[in-house]
Amino acid sequence: MKKLELDVRSFLYPMPTTLVGANIDGKPNYLVIAFCGIVNAHPPIISVSINQSHYTNIGIIENKTFSVNIPSADMAIKTDYCGLVSGGEVDKSAVFTNFYGKLGTAPMIQECPLNLECRLIQTLEFDVDTAYIGEVVSVYTEERYFTDGRLDIKKIDPIVFATHERAYYRIGDYIGQAWNIGAAFEGKDVIKKKR
Amino acid sequence: MKKLELDVRSFLYPMPTTLVGANIDGKPNYLVIAFCGIVNAHPPIISVSINQSHYTNIGIIENKTFSVNIPSADMAIKTDYCGLVSGGEVDKSAVFTNFYGKLGTAPMIQECPLNLECRLIQTLEFDVDTAYIGEVVSVYTEERYFTDGRLDIKKIDPIVFATHERAYYRIGDYIGQAWNIGAAFEGKDVIKKKR
Repeated sequence: MKKLELDVRSFLYPMPTTLVGANIDGKPNYLVIAFCGIVNAHPPIISVSINQSHYTNIGIIENKTFSVNIPSADMAIKTDYCGLVSGGEVDKSAVFTNFYGKLGTAPMIQECPLNLECRLIQTLEFDVDTAYIGEVVSVYTEERYFTDGRLDIKKIDPIVFATHERAYYRIGDYIGQAWNIGAAFEGKDVIKKKR
Repeated sequence: MKKLELDVRSFLYPMPTTLVGANIDGKPNYLVIAFCGIVNAHPPIISVSINQSHYTNIGIIENKTFSVNIPSADMAIKTDYCGLVSGGEVDKSAVFTNFYGKLGTAPMIQECPLNLECRLIQTLEFDVDTAYIGEVVSVYTEERYFTDGRLDIKKIDPIVFATHERAYYRIGDYIGQAWNIGAAFEGKDVIKKKR
Protein backbone atom coordinates (compact mmCIF):
# COMPACT_ATOMS: atom_id res chain seq x y z
CA MET A 1 0.00 0.00 0.00
CA LYS A 2 1.23 3.46 -0.85
CA LYS A 3 2.01 5.82 2.01
CA LEU A 4 0.21 9.13 2.07
CA GLU A 5 1.69 12.24 3.65
CA LEU A 6 -0.69 14.04 6.00
CA ASP A 7 -0.73 17.56 7.35
CA VAL A 8 1.52 17.42 10.37
CA ARG A 9 -0.58 17.39 13.50
CA SER A 10 -0.43 15.73 16.88
CA PHE A 11 -1.29 12.24 15.62
CA LEU A 12 -0.29 10.06 18.55
CA TYR A 13 -2.44 6.94 19.11
CA PRO A 14 -3.68 6.21 21.68
CA MET A 15 -3.65 9.28 23.92
CA PRO A 16 -4.86 9.39 27.52
CA THR A 17 -7.81 11.46 28.71
CA THR A 18 -6.80 13.05 32.01
CA LEU A 19 -8.19 15.71 34.30
CA VAL A 20 -5.43 18.06 35.41
CA GLY A 21 -6.20 19.66 38.76
CA ALA A 22 -4.86 22.94 40.12
CA ASN A 23 -5.93 25.30 42.87
CA ILE A 24 -6.71 28.83 41.75
CA ASP A 25 -7.51 31.40 44.44
CA GLY A 26 -7.68 28.46 46.82
CA LYS A 27 -10.37 26.64 44.80
CA PRO A 28 -10.02 23.37 42.84
CA ASN A 29 -10.21 23.58 39.07
CA TYR A 30 -9.97 20.73 36.53
CA LEU A 31 -9.12 20.72 32.82
CA VAL A 32 -9.24 17.82 30.33
CA ILE A 33 -5.78 17.13 28.93
CA ALA A 34 -4.58 14.51 26.42
CA PHE A 35 -1.07 15.96 25.96
CA CYS A 36 0.42 14.01 28.80
CA GLY A 37 3.20 11.43 29.09
CA ILE A 38 5.71 9.90 31.47
CA VAL A 39 9.23 11.29 30.99
CA ASN A 40 11.18 9.42 33.69
CA ALA A 41 10.57 6.10 35.46
CA HIS A 42 12.40 6.49 38.80
CA PRO A 43 11.44 8.85 40.30
CA PRO A 44 8.28 9.00 38.21
CA ILE A 45 8.14 12.29 36.37
CA ILE A 46 5.25 13.30 34.14
CA SER A 47 4.83 15.99 31.49
CA VAL A 48 1.49 17.74 31.05
CA SER A 49 1.13 20.26 28.21
CA ILE A 50 -1.49 22.97 28.48
CA ASN A 51 -2.46 25.62 25.95
CA GLN A 52 -1.24 28.96 27.26
CA SER A 53 -4.74 30.45 27.13
CA HIS A 54 -6.09 28.11 29.82
CA TYR A 55 -7.08 29.24 33.33
CA THR A 56 -5.27 26.19 34.82
CA ASN A 57 -1.84 27.71 34.05
CA ILE A 58 -2.40 30.33 36.76
CA GLY A 59 -2.80 27.73 39.49
CA ILE A 60 0.14 25.56 38.49
CA ILE A 61 2.48 28.56 38.35
CA GLU A 62 1.14 29.95 41.63
CA ASN A 63 1.37 26.76 43.71
CA LYS A 64 4.04 24.81 41.82
CA THR A 65 1.79 21.76 42.27
CA PHE A 66 -0.84 20.01 40.16
CA SER A 67 -2.58 16.66 39.89
CA VAL A 68 -3.26 14.23 37.06
CA ASN A 69 -6.52 12.37 37.61
CA ILE A 70 -7.54 9.38 35.48
CA PRO A 71 -11.31 9.36 34.97
CA SER A 72 -13.17 6.16 34.13
CA ALA A 73 -15.52 5.84 31.16
CA ASP A 74 -18.60 6.31 33.36
CA MET A 75 -17.28 9.82 34.13
CA ALA A 76 -17.03 10.78 30.43
CA ILE A 77 -19.74 13.46 30.46
CA LYS A 78 -18.35 15.32 33.48
CA THR A 79 -14.85 14.87 32.12
CA ASP A 80 -15.75 16.38 28.76
CA TYR A 81 -17.61 19.17 30.53
CA CYS A 82 -14.27 20.21 32.10
CA GLY A 83 -12.96 20.80 28.57
CA LEU A 84 -16.02 22.75 27.44
CA VAL A 85 -16.10 25.47 30.09
CA SER A 86 -13.25 27.58 31.44
CA GLY A 87 -12.56 27.94 35.15
CA GLY A 88 -12.30 31.64 34.41
CA GLU A 89 -16.05 31.70 33.69
CA VAL A 90 -17.46 28.79 35.68
CA ASP A 91 -16.56 27.54 39.16
CA LYS A 92 -15.83 23.84 38.55
CA SER A 93 -14.97 23.09 42.18
CA ALA A 94 -18.26 21.25 42.80
CA VAL A 95 -18.27 19.02 39.70
CA PHE A 96 -16.43 16.28 41.62
CA THR A 97 -15.63 15.42 45.24
CA ASN A 98 -12.22 17.00 45.94
CA PHE A 99 -9.46 15.82 48.24
CA TYR A 100 -5.89 16.92 48.94
CA GLY A 101 -2.71 14.95 49.63
CA LYS A 102 0.62 15.76 51.20
CA LEU A 103 1.38 18.79 49.00
CA GLY A 104 -1.78 20.48 50.26
CA THR A 105 -2.45 22.55 47.13
CA ALA A 106 -2.97 19.96 44.37
CA PRO A 107 -6.70 19.17 44.30
CA MET A 108 -7.62 15.60 43.36
CA ILE A 109 -10.86 13.88 42.37
CA GLN A 110 -12.26 11.25 44.74
CA GLU A 111 -14.33 9.62 41.94
CA CYS A 112 -11.29 9.00 39.69
CA PRO A 113 -9.75 5.52 40.00
CA LEU A 114 -6.24 6.95 40.01
CA ASN A 115 -4.78 10.27 41.16
CA LEU A 116 -1.20 11.41 40.65
CA GLU A 117 -0.12 14.22 42.98
CA CYS A 118 2.67 16.22 41.36
CA ARG A 119 5.25 18.79 42.37
CA LEU A 120 6.34 21.08 39.52
CA ILE A 121 10.06 20.73 38.82
CA GLN A 122 10.46 22.30 35.37
CA THR A 123 8.50 24.34 32.84
CA LEU A 124 9.07 24.32 29.08
CA GLU A 125 7.43 27.02 26.96
CA PHE A 126 6.57 25.98 23.42
CA ASP A 127 4.72 28.00 20.76
CA VAL A 128 1.17 27.46 21.99
CA ASP A 129 1.47 25.04 24.91
CA THR A 130 3.49 25.02 28.11
CA ALA A 131 4.84 21.65 29.29
CA TYR A 132 4.73 21.30 33.05
CA ILE A 133 7.18 18.66 34.18
CA GLY A 134 6.13 17.29 37.56
CA GLU A 135 7.52 14.70 39.93
CA VAL A 136 4.77 12.31 41.02
CA VAL A 137 5.04 12.42 44.82
CA SER A 138 1.97 10.29 45.61
CA VAL A 139 -0.40 7.98 43.79
CA TYR A 140 -3.89 7.27 45.15
CA THR A 141 -6.31 4.51 44.17
CA GLU A 142 -8.76 2.05 45.75
CA GLU A 143 -8.62 -1.69 46.49
CA ARG A 144 -11.39 -2.38 43.99
CA TYR A 145 -9.16 -1.52 41.01
CA PHE A 146 -6.78 -4.43 41.66
CA THR A 147 -6.76 -7.99 40.33
CA ASP A 148 -4.15 -10.38 41.76
CA GLY A 149 -2.14 -7.56 43.31
CA ARG A 150 -1.91 -5.43 40.17
CA LEU A 151 -3.93 -2.47 38.95
CA ASP A 152 -6.37 -3.81 36.34
CA ILE A 153 -6.86 -1.50 33.35
CA LYS A 154 -10.32 -2.99 32.66
CA LYS A 155 -11.43 -2.08 36.20
CA ILE A 156 -9.91 1.40 35.96
CA ASP A 157 -11.75 1.69 32.61
CA PRO A 158 -9.82 4.77 31.46
CA ILE A 159 -10.82 6.91 28.49
CA VAL A 160 -8.77 6.84 25.30
CA PHE A 161 -8.69 10.05 23.28
CA ALA A 162 -8.76 9.60 19.49
CA THR A 163 -7.28 12.86 18.33
CA HIS A 164 -8.27 13.13 14.66
CA GLU A 165 -11.85 12.03 15.30
CA ARG A 166 -12.03 14.13 18.47
CA ALA A 167 -13.66 11.15 20.17
CA TYR A 168 -13.47 9.08 23.33
CA TYR A 169 -13.12 5.29 23.40
CA ARG A 170 -12.88 2.56 26.05
CA ILE A 171 -10.21 -0.09 26.47
CA GLY A 172 -10.91 -3.28 24.53
CA ASP A 173 -9.58 -6.81 24.36
CA TYR A 174 -6.46 -8.11 26.05
CA ILE A 175 -3.67 -8.85 23.56
CA GLY A 176 -0.88 -10.33 25.69
CA GLN A 177 1.94 -9.65 28.12
CA ALA A 178 4.68 -7.13 27.42
CA TRP A 179 8.31 -8.30 27.44
CA ASN A 180 6.86 -11.72 26.78
CA ILE A 181 4.79 -12.34 23.62
CA GLY A 182 7.65 -11.12 21.42
CA ALA A 183 9.57 -14.28 22.25
CA ALA A 184 7.30 -16.04 19.74
CA PHE A 185 8.87 -14.08 16.88
CA GLU A 186 11.32 -16.40 15.24
CA GLY A 187 13.10 -13.59 13.48
CA LYS A 188 14.34 -15.64 10.58
CA ASP A 189 15.68 -12.50 8.94
CA VAL A 190 17.14 -11.12 12.13
CA ILE A 191 20.87 -11.46 12.46
CA LYS A 192 22.72 -11.89 15.75
CA LYS A 193 25.60 -9.47 15.69
CA LYS A 194 29.12 -10.85 15.93
CA ARG A 195 30.97 -9.54 18.96
CA MET B 1 -14.57 4.19 49.21
CA LYS B 2 -11.34 4.85 51.03
CA LYS B 3 -8.34 5.97 48.99
CA LEU B 4 -5.21 3.90 49.22
CA GLU B 5 -1.75 5.33 48.72
CA LEU B 6 0.43 3.32 46.31
CA ASP B 7 4.15 3.22 45.77
CA VAL B 8 4.80 6.06 43.39
CA ARG B 9 5.40 4.68 39.91
CA SER B 10 4.55 5.72 36.40
CA PHE B 11 0.83 4.98 36.66
CA LEU B 12 -0.57 6.79 33.66
CA TYR B 13 -3.57 5.15 31.96
CA PRO B 14 -3.77 4.56 29.09
CA MET B 15 -0.27 4.75 27.61
CA PRO B 16 0.59 4.31 23.92
CA THR B 17 2.72 1.49 22.57
CA THR B 18 5.08 3.00 20.01
CA LEU B 19 8.11 1.87 18.07
CA VAL B 20 10.81 4.53 18.15
CA GLY B 21 13.08 4.34 15.13
CA ALA B 22 16.66 5.57 14.83
CA ASN B 23 19.52 4.88 12.47
CA ILE B 24 22.67 3.51 14.10
CA ASP B 25 25.72 3.03 11.91
CA GLY B 26 23.42 3.68 8.99
CA LYS B 27 21.03 0.82 9.90
CA PRO B 28 17.44 1.10 11.15
CA ASN B 29 16.75 0.09 14.74
CA TYR B 30 13.42 0.08 16.61
CA LEU B 31 12.60 0.12 20.33
CA VAL B 32 9.20 -0.21 22.05
CA ILE B 33 8.40 2.92 24.04
CA ALA B 34 5.34 3.82 26.13
CA PHE B 35 6.82 6.97 27.68
CA CYS B 36 5.66 9.23 24.91
CA GLY B 37 3.38 12.25 24.71
CA ILE B 38 2.57 15.36 22.72
CA VAL B 39 4.01 18.54 24.27
CA ASN B 40 2.92 21.20 21.76
CA ALA B 41 0.07 21.33 19.24
CA HIS B 42 1.31 23.77 16.57
CA PRO B 43 3.90 22.92 15.42
CA PRO B 44 3.38 19.38 16.72
CA ILE B 45 6.15 18.53 19.14
CA ILE B 46 6.46 15.13 20.80
CA SER B 47 8.44 13.88 23.79
CA VAL B 48 9.88 10.36 23.81
CA SER B 49 11.64 9.14 26.95
CA ILE B 50 14.20 6.37 26.67
CA ASN B 51 16.15 4.62 29.41
CA GLN B 52 19.75 5.73 29.17
CA SER B 53 20.99 2.15 28.78
CA HIS B 54 19.27 1.65 25.41
CA TYR B 55 21.10 1.33 22.10
CA THR B 56 18.58 3.71 20.47
CA ASN B 57 20.07 6.72 22.30
CA ILE B 58 23.21 6.49 20.15
CA GLY B 59 21.29 6.94 16.91
CA ILE B 60 19.10 9.82 18.08
CA ILE B 61 22.10 11.75 19.40
CA GLU B 62 24.14 10.99 16.26
CA ASN B 63 21.52 11.99 13.67
CA LYS B 64 19.35 14.38 15.67
CA THR B 65 16.38 12.62 14.07
CA PHE B 66 14.03 9.80 15.10
CA SER B 67 10.63 8.40 14.24
CA VAL B 68 7.58 7.38 16.27
CA ASN B 69 5.72 4.53 14.60
CA ILE B 70 2.27 3.40 15.75
CA PRO B 71 1.93 -0.38 15.36
CA SER B 72 -1.47 -2.03 15.06
CA ALA B 73 -2.59 -4.92 17.28
CA ASP B 74 -1.80 -7.49 14.59
CA MET B 75 1.86 -6.41 14.90
CA ALA B 76 1.97 -7.05 18.68
CA ILE B 77 4.43 -9.95 18.58
CA LYS B 78 7.01 -8.16 16.42
CA THR B 79 6.44 -4.99 18.43
CA ASP B 80 7.10 -6.73 21.73
CA TYR B 81 10.12 -8.46 20.21
CA CYS B 82 11.66 -4.99 19.71
CA GLY B 83 11.48 -4.53 23.49
CA LEU B 84 12.97 -7.94 24.28
CA VAL B 85 16.21 -7.73 22.32
CA SER B 86 18.73 -4.91 22.12
CA GLY B 87 19.96 -3.47 18.85
CA GLY B 88 23.43 -3.78 20.38
CA GLU B 89 23.10 -7.57 20.21
CA VAL B 90 20.65 -8.22 17.40
CA ASP B 91 20.28 -6.48 14.05
CA LYS B 92 16.59 -5.51 13.99
CA SER B 93 16.74 -3.83 10.58
CA ALA B 94 14.93 -6.72 8.84
CA VAL B 95 12.04 -7.15 11.32
CA PHE B 96 9.91 -4.66 9.34
CA THR B 97 9.96 -3.01 5.90
CA ASN B 98 11.83 0.28 6.34
CA PHE B 99 11.37 3.57 4.57
CA TYR B 100 12.78 7.07 4.93
CA GLY B 101 11.21 10.50 4.60
CA LYS B 102 12.53 14.00 4.05
CA LEU B 103 15.01 13.95 6.94
CA GLY B 104 16.78 10.97 5.38
CA THR B 105 18.02 9.44 8.64
CA ALA B 106 14.85 8.61 10.60
CA PRO B 107 13.86 5.05 9.64
CA MET B 108 10.14 4.33 9.57
CA ILE B 109 8.05 1.17 9.40
CA GLN B 110 5.96 0.57 6.28
CA GLU B 111 3.63 -1.86 8.11
CA CYS B 112 2.68 0.70 10.81
CA PRO B 113 -0.57 2.60 10.13
CA LEU B 114 1.02 5.85 11.24
CA ASN B 115 4.59 7.19 11.17
CA LEU B 116 5.77 10.44 12.73
CA GLU B 117 9.10 11.70 11.36
CA CYS B 118 10.83 13.86 13.96
CA ARG B 119 13.70 16.32 14.14
CA LEU B 120 15.31 16.52 17.58
CA ILE B 121 15.01 20.02 19.03
CA GLN B 122 15.78 19.53 22.73
CA THR B 123 17.07 16.88 25.12
CA LEU B 124 16.22 16.62 28.82
CA GLU B 125 18.27 14.31 31.02
CA PHE B 126 16.40 12.82 33.96
CA ASP B 127 17.65 10.25 36.50
CA VAL B 128 17.22 7.12 34.39
CA ASP B 129 15.55 8.29 31.18
CA THR B 130 16.38 10.93 28.60
CA ALA B 131 13.45 12.83 27.09
CA TYR B 132 13.98 13.56 23.40
CA ILE B 133 11.79 16.46 22.33
CA GLY B 134 11.17 16.30 18.60
CA GLU B 135 9.28 18.41 16.12
CA VAL B 136 7.05 16.23 13.94
CA VAL B 137 8.05 17.29 10.41
CA SER B 138 6.00 14.68 8.52
CA VAL B 139 3.21 12.23 9.21
CA TYR B 140 2.63 9.21 6.96
CA THR B 141 -0.38 6.94 6.75
CA GLU B 142 -2.54 5.15 4.16
CA GLU B 143 -6.00 5.83 2.72
CA ARG B 144 -7.41 2.68 4.29
CA TYR B 145 -7.15 4.12 7.82
CA PHE B 146 -9.68 6.87 7.14
CA THR B 147 -13.45 6.99 7.66
CA ASP B 148 -15.30 10.06 6.37
CA GLY B 149 -12.09 12.05 5.96
CA ARG B 150 -10.74 11.41 9.45
CA LEU B 151 -8.25 8.87 10.78
CA ASP B 152 -10.28 6.09 12.40
CA ILE B 153 -8.76 4.73 15.62
CA LYS B 154 -10.56 1.39 15.17
CA LYS B 155 -8.91 0.96 11.75
CA ILE B 156 -5.50 2.04 13.06
CA ASP B 157 -6.09 -0.50 15.88
CA PRO B 158 -3.24 0.82 18.08
CA ILE B 159 -1.91 -1.02 21.12
CA VAL B 160 -2.61 0.32 24.61
CA PHE B 161 0.06 -0.37 27.23
CA ALA B 162 -1.25 -1.20 30.71
CA THR B 163 1.72 -0.33 32.84
CA HIS B 164 1.10 -2.10 36.16
CA GLU B 165 -0.02 -5.34 34.50
CA ARG B 166 2.75 -5.06 31.89
CA ALA B 167 0.15 -5.98 29.28
CA TYR B 168 -1.14 -4.91 25.87
CA TYR B 169 -4.79 -4.16 25.07
CA ARG B 170 -6.80 -3.07 22.04
CA ILE B 171 -9.14 -0.11 21.70
CA GLY B 172 -12.72 -0.87 22.70
CA ASP B 173 -16.13 0.75 22.42
CA TYR B 174 -16.84 4.28 21.26
CA ILE B 175 -17.98 6.54 24.11
CA GLY B 176 -18.77 9.85 22.41
CA GLN B 177 -17.41 13.03 20.89
CA ALA B 178 -14.96 15.27 22.73
CA TRP B 179 -15.90 18.93 23.30
CA ASN B 180 -19.46 17.74 22.85
CA ILE B 181 -20.89 15.13 25.25
CA GLY B 182 -20.06 17.31 28.26
CA ALA B 183 -22.83 19.69 27.24
CA ALA B 184 -25.25 17.13 28.72
CA PHE B 185 -23.90 17.82 32.22
CA GLU B 186 -26.41 20.07 33.86
CA GLY B 187 -23.99 21.16 36.53
CA LYS B 188 -26.58 21.91 39.17
CA ASP B 189 -23.82 22.58 41.68
CA VAL B 190 -21.67 24.54 39.27
CA ILE B 191 -21.74 28.27 39.74
CA LYS B 192 -21.30 30.82 36.94
CA LYS B 193 -18.81 33.33 38.17
CA LYS B 194 -19.91 36.95 38.46
CA ARG B 195 -17.85 39.25 36.29
